[in-house]
Amino acid sequence: MASSFFQRVLAEFTGTALLLATVIGSGVMGETLSGGNVGITLLANTLATGAILVVLITMLGPISGAHFNPAVTAVFAARGELDARVAIAYIVAQSAGAVVGVLVAHAMFDLSILQLSHKARTGWGQSLSECVASFGLITTILLTLRARAEAVATNVGLYITAAYWFTASTSFANPAVTLARAFSDTFAGIRLGDVPLFIAAQLAGAFCALVLVHLLTGERLSTVCRSVRSAAE
Amino acid sequence: MASSFFQRVLAEFTGTALLLATVIGSGVMGETLSGGNVGITLLANTLATGAILVVLITMLGPISGAHFNPAVTAVFAARGELDARVAIAYIVAQSAGAVVGVLVAHAMFDLSILQLSHKARTGWGQSLSECVASFGLITTILLTLRARAEAVATNVGLYITAAYWFTASTSFANPAVTLARAFSDTFAGIRLGDVPLFIAAQLAGAFCALVLVHLLTGERLSTVCRSVRSAAE
Amino acid sequence: MASSFFQRVLAEFTGTALLLATVIGSGVMGETLSGGNVGITLLANTLATGAILVVLITMLGPISGAHFNPAVTAVFAARGELDARVAIAYIVAQSAGAVVGVLVAHAMFDLSILQLSHKARTGWGQSLSECVASFGLITTILLTLRARAEAVATNVGLYITAAYWFTASTSFANPAVTLARAFSDTFAGIRLGDVPLFIAAQLAGAFCALVLVHLLTGERLSTVCRSVRSAAE
Amino acid sequence: MASSFFQRVLAEFTGTALLLATVIGSGVMGETLSGGNVGITLLANTLATGAILVVLITMLGPISGAHFNPAVTAVFAARGELDARVAIAYIVAQSAGAVVGVLVAHAMFDLSILQLSHKARTGWGQSLSECVASFGLITTILLTLRARAEAVATNVGLYITAAYWFTASTSFANPAVTLARAFSDTFAGIRLGDVPLFIAAQLAGAFCALVLVHLLTGERLSTVCRSVRSAAE
Repeated sequence: MASSFFQRVLAEFTGTALLLATVIGSGVMGETLSGGNVGITLLANTLATGAILVVLITMLGPISGAHFNPAVTAVFAARGELDARVAIAYIVAQSAGAVVGVLVAHAMFDLSILQLSHKARTGWGQSLSECVASFGLITTILLTLRARAEAVATNVGLYITAAYWFTASTSFANPAVTLARAFSDTFAGIRLGDVPLFIAAQLAGAFCALVLVHLLTGERLSTVCRSVRSAAE
Repeated sequence: MASSFFQRVLAEFTGTALLLATVIGSGVMGETLSGGNVGITLLANTLATGAILVVLITMLGPISGAHFNPAVTAVFAARGELDARVAIAYIVAQSAGAVVGVLVAHAMFDLSILQLSHKARTGWGQSLSECVASFGLITTILLTLRARAEAVATNVGLYITAAYWFTASTSFANPAVTLARAFSDTFAGIRLGDVPLFIAAQLAGAFCALVLVHLLTGERLSTVCRSVRSAAE
Repeated sequence: MASSFFQRVLAEFTGTALLLATVIGSGVMGETLSGGNVGITLLANTLATGAILVVLITMLGPISGAHFNPAVTAVFAARGELDARVAIAYIVAQSAGAVVGVLVAHAMFDLSILQLSHKARTGWGQSLSECVASFGLITTILLTLRARAEAVATNVGLYITAAYWFTASTSFANPAVTLARAFSDTFAGIRLGDVPLFIAAQLAGAFCALVLVHLLTGERLSTVCRSVRSAAE
Repeated sequence: MASSFFQRVLAEFTGTALLLATVIGSGVMGETLSGGNVGITLLANTLATGAILVVLITMLGPISGAHFNPAVTAVFAARGELDARVAIAYIVAQSAGAVVGVLVAHAMFDLSILQLSHKARTGWGQSLSECVASFGLITTILLTLRARAEAVATNVGLYITAAYWFTASTSFANPAVTLARAFSDTFAGIRLGDVPLFIAAQLAGAFCALVLVHLLTGERLSTVCRSVRSAAE
């Protein structure tokens, strides 16, 4: 039995909310407990985020595809695997879910519910990092789906585990996550003004991944063409 | 060959005892070795707990279902997948096993066998955390059973790995574990007086999970109705 | 093609050597790098040991069964799944391999090749810890073989990951490992005089595991009787 | 559809580039955040490297075999499973990709793009470490392919996780990686002058692995003979 439109959108909302609760909550917990050693905070943040991604993708994948990420949704729409109405609903649900997840994390830690981040994340290195991070994420998803579909959940969790450390930005790689993290003045936050460039870099990275996957797998160029058009719109 | 009633109850007892020995023991070891850095203690506690959960659920699942958690047992009873007599026996075995596990941990570390925790765990944030933690755990179990049953052990281990960090309470998410941890005045302890509210929050979270799973999967409402009645009793 | 006697014994030798090189080497590396924080040292030691166990058991399992542990070999012999001549050869190969692994670790770190540990590991807590650690290890192996044989490698790695932290002795759980660690005056060492009691506790734990598995699975009592006799000899 | 020559070479280039970006990037991030505790830096470096290896091998394996390592390519050529033209192209692509990955890591962290390492890595312990590290890696690949081919990605990731800690050299175990790390004056660097001995030790270790696998599996001696000749050339 295929899932209904409502069920698919609810799955995207719930999954993204739990993802953000984890990203923000584990960052707060890490900062509280690590005695000022940011390395320990990021280890905890990494462990929690990687783990929850595997869980969420495994359990919600059969319902909605488990994107939790507008860049992923855009890529599947560009490849013609998702119709526009569903894609838009997914992106709205992901963004709303992400913000709700942030608020729930604040409530669990007895912090002000509504916050605005003051953490500056700027510079070429940050933009390049987000571009590389998203490039790697989309490549991971598309090639793993092709190589061994049942390994996608694990591979995404492991990829983000690595990318938290190998990029200078700690790898947001997700426009909805980026937006929502602007509403948290904690470890994982980002200044609202730095959000647009992050999202632009993420979309650029996603586009590079589409090109690479075309080259590596020989998928029809028309798919890529459609992707280009879609990315340009 | 199906397991006998005695074998199933013994499996719940043994599994919960090993789980608690791990939770308490790794907390003591972490505190002893981490030189006062609570972040390192919780990393060790997380690693050990997540790992043993995968082991216990994989190896005891075929015998008893590997609940080790009265909230999980209550959910399966509410869904009509476990009869009342077995459910009650499971919950008694889990509670007894949990306490025995705590005592064994104390003995291994040459601590007083019988202890009572003085660690206060109160406030709205803590209650919300336990509600969210149990909500996520029950959702993980029910949706993973449906999506890929053989991934339940891994997903529960990974979920708890994340939840130790993203909730403010370090995610007890289990009434038997909560009760038993009141008998340990160590890192993982909880004041006996704070136990009832934790358990209430856990059951509330489990109920929310039942509703969400109904919405996401379209299971018959009667199942949820029965759950409501059962939760209210 | 079944493996020859020589191949099986060589596999036990090689696997145990690599296991000990990892246990000792990662302990030395951890101590060198952690700036005196023993918690970080044990995290590294745990990570390395858990990881190599999964690798070794997966790759050498089809050749020798991948015991690397005289207590495991004794249990399989007691259950009538391994004949006495092979069991004795395995135990000799494991002990020799373990010592060679220790020496190789010393050589890699430019330490004196031949050492004798001065680390005291005594007291009831330590003995109980080794008994519990081996009980859990043998239970894990026997029940996982029955529940999902292809998960044995992962489960043993995860079990030891947990047991390094939840027992007061950091879970040697292996007579060959215990003996070999007496020849290293580093983080993972143990005083030669403390070895016999560790091994006795390990065998007691293994015996308890045989009884528990009998109770949980209803295997014929004769198997357990044979085990008792064998354990008593 | 088999992958084309170009696709295979591109996969080796891309995979090795992402591997090196991870090795270098996570080392820089670890050093920046760990407050001088090298243990925490190496934990982060290990976590990221082990994770990305599983991802890269899973997703690129079906295209190129996912070697990312001239020693691995040489071994498969020696065993007659890869023709010389492809092997040479692979090794060139791996080396170029590795250097590009280093440069990208520098750019992401706003460091000088072109660097030369000043980190001395000399002495018998280092050479022995690289020999043991490569011996273990090649053994892991060949025996896991034989025992359970779908576990190769996981086993390589876990093996390197262990080897980062149990060898004194943190286990480069890869000539292309070694060369590229000479161009980074960061945590993971190595002085250019120390590269040749590292590579010699790695090839010696790979050869020992071929001999061991012959002994353990009884593969035709001619395969090993061919390997010897190939290794000697």
